[in-house]
Amino acid sequence: MMMSGKDFAEPDFSKSADGLVAAIAQDWQTGEVLMLAWMNRQSWRRTLETGHATYWSRSRRTLWTKGESSGNVQKIREIYLDCDLDAVLMKVEQVGDAACHQGYRSCFYRRLAEDGSLEAVGERIFDPGTVYK
Amino acid sequence: MMMSGKDFAEPDFSKSADGLVAAIAQDWQTGEVLMLAWMNRQSWRRTLETGHATYWSRSRRTLWTKGESSGNVQKIREIYLDCDLDAVLMKVEQVGDAACHQGYRSCFYRRLAEDGSLEAVGERIFDPGTVYK
Repeated sequence: MMMSGKDFAEPDFSKSADGLVAAIAQDWQTGEVLMLAWMNRQSWRRTLETGHATYWSRSRRTLWTKGESSGNVQKIREIYLDCDLDAVLMKVEQVGDAACHQGYRSCFYRRLAEDGSLEAVGERIFDPGTVYK
Repeated sequence: MMMSGKDFAEPDFSKSADGLVAAIAQDWQTGEVLMLAWMNRQSWRRTLETGHATYWSRSRRTLWTKGESSGNVQKIREIYLDCDLDAVLMKVEQVGDAACHQGYRSCFYRRLAEDGSLEAVGERIFDPGTVYK
């Protein structure tokens, strides 16, 4: 999905002081939630123009196209906005099958156990040591 | 799921200036993403103690147990944290089948169409006018 026009709907970036909205990437086939990151207007437009999920890195303060290092880009299949227009849900095709820089399919690979600890239950697709050199 | 101890893992609330992390509610059976809201430490603990998703309302600046008005509480089935510990994914049983105050099953009921407009594609479960009086 690529959209090049300027007259598309967009989230309400004025809702937060920093001009960012939360963006969820969900596997378009399995429904698995892959990750949550941030978007400003520039990353929203870049996402629509390229068809690849592009976020705003709060730590690096730069645009960040997911997969620019690992090759594991997220191809946009559908985009939804929520009722308040301040959250984005992208249904994506995750190239390489792993969204997480830790090598897991999903960044949400740790489950809170009954004893209060975190247990890794997600599926590890790659060894991050061999991908990010 | 209810957890009463104090020694459970928690998100890193220091990651953002306002002490909030993003929290996603996902239907535990269908995988549908129902909503995104915010949590501070108090809402995280209340969620674990009660077994019902409890958020922090940024606009009202108060704890907010989802469903306290509508009765449509979200019973926690599983909780996941992401790799950076600054996002929460809750798999929930959505009582009443509708998470959105607009009456839709999911708050993400509007899809970005090819022409750039937003189209409501979600399933409307109730008429908000008859629920919130």
